[in-house]
Amino acid sequence: MSKIEPKILKGFRDFLPEQQIARQKMINIIKASYETFGFEPLETPVLEYAEVLTGKYGDEGDKLMYRFKDNGDRDVAMRYDLTIPLARVVAMNGELKKPFKRYQISPVWRAENTQKGRYREFYQCDADIVGSKSPLADAEALALSANTLKKLGVTDFVIRVNSREIISAFYESLKLSESEKVSAIRAVDKIGKIGKDGVKAELEKANLADKALDIIAFAETSIDAMENRADIMKLGELFPSIKTPIEKLVGILESALKLSPGTRFVVDLSIARGLDYYTGLIFETNLTKAPQFGSVLSGGRYDNLVGVFSNTQMPAVGISIGLDRLFAALEELQLVKIEKTTAKAIVLNIDEKLSDEYLSLATELRDAGINTVLYFDTADMKKQFSYASDKGIKYAVIYGSNEAKEGKVTIKNLETGVQEIGKRTDVAKMIKN
Amino acid sequence: MSKIEPKILKGFRDFLPEQQIARQKMINIIKASYETFGFEPLETPVLEYAEVLTGKYGDEGDKLMYRFKDNGDRDVAMRYDLTIPLARVVAMNGELKKPFKRYQISPVWRAENTQKGRYREFYQCDADIVGSKSPLADAEALALSANTLKKLGVTDFVIRVNSREIISAFYESLKLSESEKVSAIRAVDKIGKIGKDGVKAELEKANLADKALDIIAFAETSIDAMENRADIMKLGELFPSIKTPIEKLVGILESALKLSPGTRFVVDLSIARGLDYYTGLIFETNLTKAPQFGSVLSGGRYDNLVGVFSNTQMPAVGISIGLDRLFAALEELQLVKIEKTTAKAIVLNIDEKLSDEYLSLATELRDAGINTVLYFDTADMKKQFSYASDKGIKYAVIYGSNEAKEGKVTIKNLETGVQEIGKRTDVAKMIKN
Repeated sequence: MSKIEPKILKGFRDFLPEQQIARQKMINIIKASYETFGFEPLETPVLEYAEVLTGKYGDEGDKLMYRFKDNGDRDVAMRYDLTIPLARVVAMNGELKKPFKRYQISPVWRAENTQKGRYREFYQCDADIVGSKSPLADAEALALSANTLKKLGVTDFVIRVNSREIISAFYESLKLSESEKVSAIRAVDKIGKIGKDGVKAELEKANLADKALDIIAFAETSIDAMENRADIMKLGELFPSIKTPIEKLVGILESALKLSPGTRFVVDLSIARGLDYYTGLIFETNLTKAPQFGSVLSGGRYDNLVGVFSNTQMPAVGISIGLDRLFAALEELQLVKIEKTTAKAIVLNIDEKLSDEYLSLATELRDAGINTVLYFDTADMKKQFSYASDKGIKYAVIYGSNEAKEGKVTIKNLETGVQEIGKRTDVAKMIKN
Repeated sequence: MSKIEPKILKGFRDFLPEQQIARQKMINIIKASYETFGFEPLETPVLEYAEVLTGKYGDEGDKLMYRFKDNGDRDVAMRYDLTIPLARVVAMNGELKKPFKRYQISPVWRAENTQKGRYREFYQCDADIVGSKSPLADAEALALSANTLKKLGVTDFVIRVNSREIISAFYESLKLSESEKVSAIRAVDKIGKIGKDGVKAELEKANLADKALDIIAFAETSIDAMENRADIMKLGELFPSIKTPIEKLVGILESALKLSPGTRFVVDLSIARGLDYYTGLIFETNLTKAPQFGSVLSGGRYDNLVGVFSNTQMPAVGISIGLDRLFAALEELQLVKIEKTTAKAIVLNIDEKLSDEYLSLATELRDAGINTVLYFDTADMKKQFSYASDKGIKYAVIYGSNEAKEGKVTIKNLETGVQEIGKRTDVAKMIKN
């Protein structure tokens, strides 16, 4: 074989141990949080028939999909998100009891423009409840979002909620045409970026100058649910058209606050999120101390999507965490602890005559549940200490001819430099304490 | 959107919760076992440049690869195994300290003939040590294999070991040509299936009739390392050509027995495993009580593969578990416990007026670390019990108007039917005990 240049595709990444250890920890916390709420794991294939995926994500989605002919000339595509595969699974497995609560934490693939700092392979962490219209399901989606962030150590976050029903009712009351409605929602969606005046200008361009004041007043509405519950109810007086959906949303928030006390939910009527997908509750989550990352967790109710493969409607509500973005944000907030190794101890290899003893020491430590590296070659101590330090291993087990004679063992804490001598038989106990 | 038939590609599978819960448990045990030996997690992309993968797995491999042009007209392919990506990572990250011990548990894709009961998407669990020629690294690979199976609850297994050095030395002593050697190894590899006479016939066909007796005697050699260590050393007298590599193998086995005491290692000179790949130790693992599954765990030393992307040789030794095959075998042996849910409790929804209380009960249980399902709609008890039983949830939390009046709660064990009444505030404690 001739030498081939080792290279990796643009938008794809290797996760070396010090990244992967922290990512796995984060995934484990998310999994445990999802399971606490009674969600069960599901795994679907990376490849699907293309026709199962296409036409569900809009033109943009079809364009960004990794799609090809397989060896059997089947038209196949790589997983683009976790929701359409869920819909397929639900349609194919009618025996699944509803409500069906599943989670999936898996990579998805999109041929995004990498210049925007986007990856082409990235992880989504989804939890969805399929088959319930109950507002308690919506409340669980919100509470699960909040609890998961809390378990990841995040204390400062805001979940901004709205509902498609509120948006529809409001724009219907203004008697906008469908295309005017789309223009208005697009403009309003940018209020955080371009400000009130920017939105006004866009609305004027769309010939909605006469309704701009009303629309902006609506979009500027943002009320903290914990502190000002009464004010939210008053929205029904301010915008009479949305009285019913506001009451529904308040009911959901009250339940969510019971399920995740102390969470900061803010009713923010500017939130729109993809127009065609959601049918009820919608929400986004921002980290107060790392706003530059945008929304790290979002979700909502989508009652028409899961039924796309069958003739029965299948209501659903769910959440999705973009693992890569949340990881980056938590790194920025120093909530991710980077560890170079999962190994806690290294057994040094000092004296060839004691080789069997080193094997026994490593085995004792491992049997005691201590992740242990065995240094393979007899080498000078300096080299072995340097290897251990570079790897980030905390304890070195030193067993030379002196220790052997006395039935002792020396444990060196490589972070502090402190050495401790104890009985050979206590080696695991010494490191555990 | 018109209705599309929901279907899944041949050779690909969905893992519904009751499979996936058990699979995740198994993966977690394997991960923990690998980490005990100081292996660190690595993750590589699903897609690679095709040229990184092709030409490494023989013609068969190139034919079975999922390979296509991406949207940017790059020639790409899906991961075919975990070893070549490891080699690429090692070549691209010279700063990685050697020996580099990494594990990766990930799916790989091969367009196999599904009629042979093979999957096109399946998981490999690999652990490799890169950058050490020490026989202790070989011993760790063997001991890790044994310990991982033990941690999975498997008690009856045999690790059959051989080495490429032994095979080479033996056939060189017979002065076989390279093509005769290949024919002989292929014939010998089948001895378990076609028996001694079958091998003899094949050797005769390959014009090796005069050497058939020697070759068969060699291939029939199978000695238990624990019980008959001395007999193994005698192999050097029986086949003088292999004296040196046999001594080396015995040394490795002695160390492996120190690292995983009580393991049944058998020196089996019929084992060949892929001709071009391995350079030293080779081994396969069979479950004594489920021999029909063949080898569930294999590995060996391959000193020339990891260096394929660079100009320096990079010795390596590793193990690979075929997760799907091992899972099937453990299911057969009833060592896999199928659980339909990870949820332990369900809070029934009996009285609409107590709705807030149900939310609080669920929250208290979840905060206490008990995975809990909340029944969303007020419904009759029978329906709710049936839902809980179908889901396999063990405890039902019953809180009706009577309980509410008295500050009590009823916990029903749905497996035994036994009910217990306790203080409302003790709900988590009651389920935990």
